[in-house]
Amino acid sequence: MNTHTIRKITLNCDIGESFGAYKMGEDELIMPHIDCANIACGFHASDPLTMSQTVALATEHQVKIGAHPSYPDLVGFGRRHMDCSEQEIIALVMYQVGALNGVAARYGESVAYVKPHGALYNDMLRNSEIFKAVCKAVSYLQTQQRQPLPLMVMATPQNSEWQALASNYDVHLWFEGFADRRYNHKGRLVSRKQSGSVLTDEADVLAQAQRFARREPIIDKDGHERLISIDSLCVHGDNPSAVETVTKIRELLHSLPE
Amino acid sequence: MNTHTIRKITLNCDIGESFGAYKMGEDELIMPHIDCANIACGFHASDPLTMSQTVALATEHQVKIGAHPSYPDLVGFGRRHMDCSEQEIIALVMYQVGALNGVAARYGESVAYVKPHGALYNDMLRNSEIFKAVCKAVSYLQTQQRQPLPLMVMATPQNSEWQALASNYDVHLWFEGFADRRYNHKGRLVSRKQSGSVLTDEADVLAQAQRFARREPIIDKDGHERLISIDSLCVHGDNPSAVETVTKIRELLHSLPE
Amino acid sequence: MNTHTIRKITLNCDIGESFGAYKMGEDELIMPHIDCANIACGFHASDPLTMSQTVALATEHQVKIGAHPSYPDLVGFGRRHMDCSEQEIIALVMYQVGALNGVAARYGESVAYVKPHGALYNDMLRNSEIFKAVCKAVSYLQTQQRQPLPLMVMATPQNSEWQALASNYDVHLWFEGFADRRYNHKGRLVSRKQSGSVLTDEADVLAQAQRFARREPIIDKDGHERLISIDSLCVHGDNPSAVETVTKIRELLHSLPE
Amino acid sequence: MNTHTIRKITLNCDIGESFGAYKMGEDELIMPHIDCANIACGFHASDPLTMSQTVALATEHQVKIGAHPSYPDLVGFGRRHMDCSEQEIIALVMYQVGALNGVAARYGESVAYVKPHGALYNDMLRNSEIFKAVCKAVSYLQTQQRQPLPLMVMATPQNSEWQALASNYDVHLWFEGFADRRYNHKGRLVSRKQSGSVLTDEADVLAQAQRFARREPIIDKDGHERLISIDSLCVHGDNPSAVETVTKIRELLHSLPE
Repeated sequence: MNTHTIRKITLNCDIGESFGAYKMGEDELIMPHIDCANIACGFHASDPLTMSQTVALATEHQVKIGAHPSYPDLVGFGRRHMDCSEQEIIALVMYQVGALNGVAARYGESVAYVKPHGALYNDMLRNSEIFKAVCKAVSYLQTQQRQPLPLMVMATPQNSEWQALASNYDVHLWFEGFADRRYNHKGRLVSRKQSGSVLTDEADVLAQAQRFARREPIIDKDGHERLISIDSLCVHGDNPSAVETVTKIRELLHSLPE
Repeated sequence: MNTHTIRKITLNCDIGESFGAYKMGEDELIMPHIDCANIACGFHASDPLTMSQTVALATEHQVKIGAHPSYPDLVGFGRRHMDCSEQEIIALVMYQVGALNGVAARYGESVAYVKPHGALYNDMLRNSEIFKAVCKAVSYLQTQQRQPLPLMVMATPQNSEWQALASNYDVHLWFEGFADRRYNHKGRLVSRKQSGSVLTDEADVLAQAQRFARREPIIDKDGHERLISIDSLCVHGDNPSAVETVTKIRELLHSLPE
Repeated sequence: MNTHTIRKITLNCDIGESFGAYKMGEDELIMPHIDCANIACGFHASDPLTMSQTVALATEHQVKIGAHPSYPDLVGFGRRHMDCSEQEIIALVMYQVGALNGVAARYGESVAYVKPHGALYNDMLRNSEIFKAVCKAVSYLQTQQRQPLPLMVMATPQNSEWQALASNYDVHLWFEGFADRRYNHKGRLVSRKQSGSVLTDEADVLAQAQRFARREPIIDKDGHERLISIDSLCVHGDNPSAVETVTKIRELLHSLPE
Repeated sequence: MNTHTIRKITLNCDIGESFGAYKMGEDELIMPHIDCANIACGFHASDPLTMSQTVALATEHQVKIGAHPSYPDLVGFGRRHMDCSEQEIIALVMYQVGALNGVAARYGESVAYVKPHGALYNDMLRNSEIFKAVCKAVSYLQTQQRQPLPLMVMATPQNSEWQALASNYDVHLWFEGFADRRYNHKGRLVSRKQSGSVLTDEADVLAQAQRFARREPIIDKDGHERLISIDSLCVHGDNPSAVETVTKIRELLHSLPE
């Protein structure tokens, strides 16, 4: 096994999505098992106090603090496309990352990376102008922080093209894969609107996670091998059963030869 | 004239209070004449793009970037008391200061000081628990920023007591006075609900500004001299006439012997 | 047993408090067991679509549609006191009741009564100016609807005084009691900050419900009988266990002699 | 001149768009000169108290109360497209119309018609599914109100097709034209992104208003006559100069033969 394959992938999870009196997600259960916490910043979910509590929990478990900025759409949970201008997107990303960074100061922490949420994440991957706007925001922020602020995006067979684009802004990309989602022949996620888009059998999820971790091709929906290189695996902590799956993925990763 | 008296006072102004399509204040007119911009952070006014434009304007005129955090009350412009817990206050101050800091990264700037807004400002001065909560927030933030983050509060005859309290958190206070507000026998502002609380004659405003600047006692509402030491004078840019007064205060300060 | 005692009390429950992606309460479980649904109107909880779904559910179970207006404080769930003016309170109550009424049109329904939520409810009971403002709002609304719109408030030994005040605005009051809360010697709820404020033993809850239903005095925290007359009992559908208790209260009410 | 031509057209204006401390529009100046007030309902602008004050002003001048519902986007002033589902649109229209109706109860008034705002208005005209969703909402509301609730939409050469579609929901349409906007060869507005889309010469505006009022063809951007039949002319009260133009349009309409 070559040196490339032994680089461990991280587990990242959307987290801190409670809002005021509303609780969402099994944050306390999942936090011990992940490496990177994509923390909501108040635009699709969360509020200052929830963010503070989430950073505290992440810090306790030595999990990296990631900003999870969104369109301003609390009632839509940031899942609805909004026609925002480039300038609006730059500003709203900087606002949210900065806000989380401010909150993190309480625990001697700072934001370590950025992963856009929901519709903004999808729009960024579909529209290079939006992707560039996000890169600009991240670029300014990392200059201020005097440390790299990687941007997490979806891994595809075109990772190098995306990285080339981001490099224009000195932004380093982290590519993430999904253990529980089926990929199509282009190496993109099968739409949730199609049947079979989500792997519901835990064994299938674990198998796909293992392939990602071993740098092996995954099996796409047509049964073909498809090589998609990732830095991180996106996992879910929505409910105790999801957390259970994550603990198995974690064990599986630990069992890989170094 | 001793060395103390020659320290120039600064002019600070609440600014950047537009919101989306709503314009408020003569920001472009007033910015050239002030030293410290108390920039709204999205909770009582402003939005990420407006904040970005406000920081750009401040930077152009070499004006210090101040965070102007508020209770979360956009419709009430942050003027209504809300029963927030200590933990909520710490978190919302850190969130807003951080957010402005994030936005400021675009212009290579960072937040230089903090001045709470409206009801939060008033509550902080009335309730030492709230004052301490704000001090804690500022303390964490300045540790992260690795530079002092002064907290601007109202000057009273008890400045040293307030500073002693803030010093427990290593927070440095900037004391501000008001050129256009009448003070009572305790050296506090006469309530706006009382007649005569606001100086409407520009000559009176300029006279009070000069007394503050020269470190001389001001004349309280009962006609007695009252010594209130300030670091900064709060001025207003609501309309062209208010800006005109500020330019005169500015000239007056420049004419003082150094 | 006289005619007065056989009037059945209703069961009312705060409901429809989900918000966008956030789910709260066991609405589908509790709805079949209540008479009056206090439906959140978007200011402390809920959103237009959730309101529509809640009205649909209430209609299915022939439950009365009650408006549950609040201060505008989504992140604080309407639990925090806000300094709102009389005019603001009148307007925000009318807005929210009207909004629910508009949504209810889809199901051929309309708002049948009003019960303020959280801090607004508490403030109304503490401050007669706020109580009058709510009465004014309800008065205007019932004139428009051409049918009475009762206002639900907390039952105390002073019911008749409250009704006299409300009658100045032609507003009819419905008085509610709490089966699971301990009352003090004044017939008011023991503060939640005090131990023993909530009855945690289901048998105690059922006993108190039965006393309310039979028009018998309840036993206050000092062990004395205290007569508090109610029209409705407030119950909770937060979780399956709470719903279980409500079904028992319902059975108990049904078993009372008519 | 036949009987059709003598039907007077109304003047409608977007109004009540202030929000809390933010003032927008010359509502007091324009209200005396219009027939129909499109009143913001709190989703793109306004708040309960502002709505109440706007209804009071409209009532004083015997102006019809129109609901002006929007996507939930205060910071974007409802101008940004949002991907809302059919169910969400039905619910948000019903919520906002109901809310204004509730507020109007204070003045013995009720909502007389509905005109969607901004992006929702545009989307409704581009997407028949959204148009139908709005029609459904209006249909339910007028059944509840027991009186017709016309829906105001943009006049085009296809008015009858739009009316046929709306008639499926028993909704009556009011068609509006724009005195100050240039129309293209399809009888649609020239996009604001194109030069010459707005008539800046007051004489041109008045001439186009007169043609609309006389049921004569207007002159499109290519110099051709184009007949567009309208019930109402949309005017603006953004500033004193705009109001001045409206007073001239009003005089012009009054001078037409009955």
